[in-house]
Amino acid sequence: MHDTYGVLLGLFIVYVAAQVGAEAAMRLKLPAVVGEIAAGCVVGPSALGWVKITEPLAALSEIGAVLLLFSVGLETQVADLRRVGKAALAVGVSGVALPFVLGGGWARLTGFDTPQALFVGAAFVATSAGITARVLHDLGVLGRAESRVILGAAVIDDILAMLLLGVVTALQGAAGVDIPRLLIVLVQALAFVFFIAVVGTRLMRRTSAVLDAPINPHSPLALSLALCLGLAVEAAHLGLAAIIGAFLAGMVIAESRQRHALEKQVQPILSFLVPFFFVTTGAKVDLSQLGSWSVVGTVAVVTLLAVIGKIVGCGVGALSMGRRSALIVGVGMVPRGEVGIIVASLGASAGVFGPKTYAVIIVMSLLTSVIAPPVLKALLAGAPPEPAPEASLLVAVDETGNA
Amino acid sequence: MHDTYGVLLGLFIVYVAAQVGAEAAMRLKLPAVVGEIAAGCVVGPSALGWVKITEPLAALSEIGAVLLLFSVGLETQVADLRRVGKAALAVGVSGVALPFVLGGGWARLTGFDTPQALFVGAAFVATSAGITARVLHDLGVLGRAESRVILGAAVIDDILAMLLLGVVTALQGAAGVDIPRLLIVLVQALAFVFFIAVVGTRLMRRTSAVLDAPINPHSPLALSLALCLGLAVEAAHLGLAAIIGAFLAGMVIAESRQRHALEKQVQPILSFLVPFFFVTTGAKVDLSQLGSWSVVGTVAVVTLLAVIGKIVGCGVGALSMGRRSALIVGVGMVPRGEVGIIVASLGASAGVFGPKTYAVIIVMSLLTSVIAPPVLKALLAGAPPEPAPEASLLVAVDETGNA
Repeated sequence: MHDTYGVLLGLFIVYVAAQVGAEAAMRLKLPAVVGEIAAGCVVGPSALGWVKITEPLAALSEIGAVLLLFSVGLETQVADLRRVGKAALAVGVSGVALPFVLGGGWARLTGFDTPQALFVGAAFVATSAGITARVLHDLGVLGRAESRVILGAAVIDDILAMLLLGVVTALQGAAGVDIPRLLIVLVQALAFVFFIAVVGTRLMRRTSAVLDAPINPHSPLALSLALCLGLAVEAAHLGLAAIIGAFLAGMVIAESRQRHALEKQVQPILSFLVPFFFVTTGAKVDLSQLGSWSVVGTVAVVTLLAVIGKIVGCGVGALSMGRRSALIVGVGMVPRGEVGIIVASLGASAGVFGPKTYAVIIVMSLLTSVIAPPVLKALLAGAPPEPAPEASLLVAVDETGNA
Repeated sequence: MHDTYGVLLGLFIVYVAAQVGAEAAMRLKLPAVVGEIAAGCVVGPSALGWVKITEPLAALSEIGAVLLLFSVGLETQVADLRRVGKAALAVGVSGVALPFVLGGGWARLTGFDTPQALFVGAAFVATSAGITARVLHDLGVLGRAESRVILGAAVIDDILAMLLLGVVTALQGAAGVDIPRLLIVLVQALAFVFFIAVVGTRLMRRTSAVLDAPINPHSPLALSLALCLGLAVEAAHLGLAAIIGAFLAGMVIAESRQRHALEKQVQPILSFLVPFFFVTTGAKVDLSQLGSWSVVGTVAVVTLLAVIGKIVGCGVGALSMGRRSALIVGVGMVPRGEVGIIVASLGASAGVFGPKTYAVIIVMSLLTSVIAPPVLKALLAGAPPEPAPEASLLVAVDETGNA
């Protein structure tokens, strides 16, 4: 009975901290994620010490991350990828390549070995479409060409980030092993990702009715969640991050007819479980690591590289739209948010990142998410008005914004 | 990374087992709960051994139970209690008293000490309204007087069961302690229950707007879940079962204007987390304990007592409706389902029940849930038809049936 009390007390504190943090952040016009992670820092062992990261809390946090990436996948339709056009493709690809090179290069130069440096590079890559979409939505500019490119590129970005993360974790797991073994791991990983992303989604498009079959009224949801857990397990089994499997499961389900109903049903589950992930992420940050000027300097350098990587990388990809639009797109892609944070926490739990690197990457992710929205607003306020050509996009993006 | 794999694999197996069990049960026209618990027996350590009850799984199972009782509370409105009328009140009270006496008496006579025997008695008490409501709904007889009495009495039943469980756990925790201390614990427990059930619900009725205040679109849900976790923690802190707090939180939220929206939002969370509770419950059953004729005899006796307790106890309370109706009401109150199972698993984790008693009580709960529905159908098929006087009740009960 005593144990029940301890477990529930921990969960209660974490859940309330998340709500208070999110509420405070939103009143300060910051993304809710920033508030939840900051709340985690405050109640965590290195500050107030109200929350210890016990095994049940760690498991809930993992489940939260898995479901979060499942919902990101659920918003990633294969058809959207085809529709985004050349500009978004160029922005997505060059916006992944440059930050990866800058982040990995910085890590290699400051003393990490190559597999570790690649992991750091991966944490620089992923854009959080959710934060930018919210800003664009609030400004009522979702119909602008820049907005469409940003949101299209963010999808490409997510997929490339997952692929990169797959390669990097596989390399990590096989580090020190002979080259043939490493190649087998890599090929397995890539084969898994391509098989699910291509064959799985096609199969689902053709046989979407399977989700309808069972009698149980909650079965489409139950089957989707089972697929999510199953592919997460299989990804982990192949030496990939479990969240990659969850993301792919989301992409597969996104092709089903029940997609919209499922998106709605997944929301309450996310709103219960995802806070455990963000607060735990914050609680793991050892604030004492951030107490020296040298670390503040490192944070500044890393954040600057992360910002430059996206503005230049994405901006170059969008140059065909004109310089001001290219800048808007670049700034819109700056926030790292959830995915960067998940990569950082994977790196920490795999022992790739020490407490200092982990703290630096988390703070970088937070800073990019805090800096970009006001700059984006200022740029858009000064930009010439443009009519909204596709009303349908407003609906699609509104969902992303609320995610 | 390896640990993530182990945790997720366990969750995946449990979740799939639950879905397969539920589906199989529903095809056999049995309640889904029966299939989920049976699936747990099959994959658990005493049969296939695919699932071990690790700390994360135990925690998820606990959270599942807490949320389940929260949703039961959410369906329990104070106004319903006032409306049920004298018949339902009599049925509820005498239907709790007789099974408690029979169960507790049997336990005392077979060698349990008094606090343990009271705990066994408590496991005999609670009716699972969900199972009966589903049967009544499927037969289209929710408008009959018997149905209204059954569903009204089930609400009284839940509240009395929670009260009894509170007293019994408090006694258990304080067993061997001096009488004044015991009295303080009891008074605290009762004061907590009454305070929340009376003052809390009244406060919520008057100030329901608090749930609307925050900006976050999911905040009414988040606040409700925070209240659920908070009262569960407080209940555990006072030496009560955590689920009692969750149930009371549900009753408080049931008085808010957002009640119906919240019921809908809680459903997907339940459908993800509650299976972990039922499968774990089944997995904890040591099937080897059921392998002797003496235990089979015990199961038969206990199940008979559980059935007689409800048919006679509730039937006497409903005699004013005529003998056939009284029998229908009595049979309708027989299924124990979730709440009895939660009491059994609390007893096991508190060390009150050994593996044999636990297995016997679980099997009794399952048997009552399997036996009652066909008998109820047969009785209702032979009963004279009666017009449905209150169409509004159909809606209210439909929700219970889908719970």
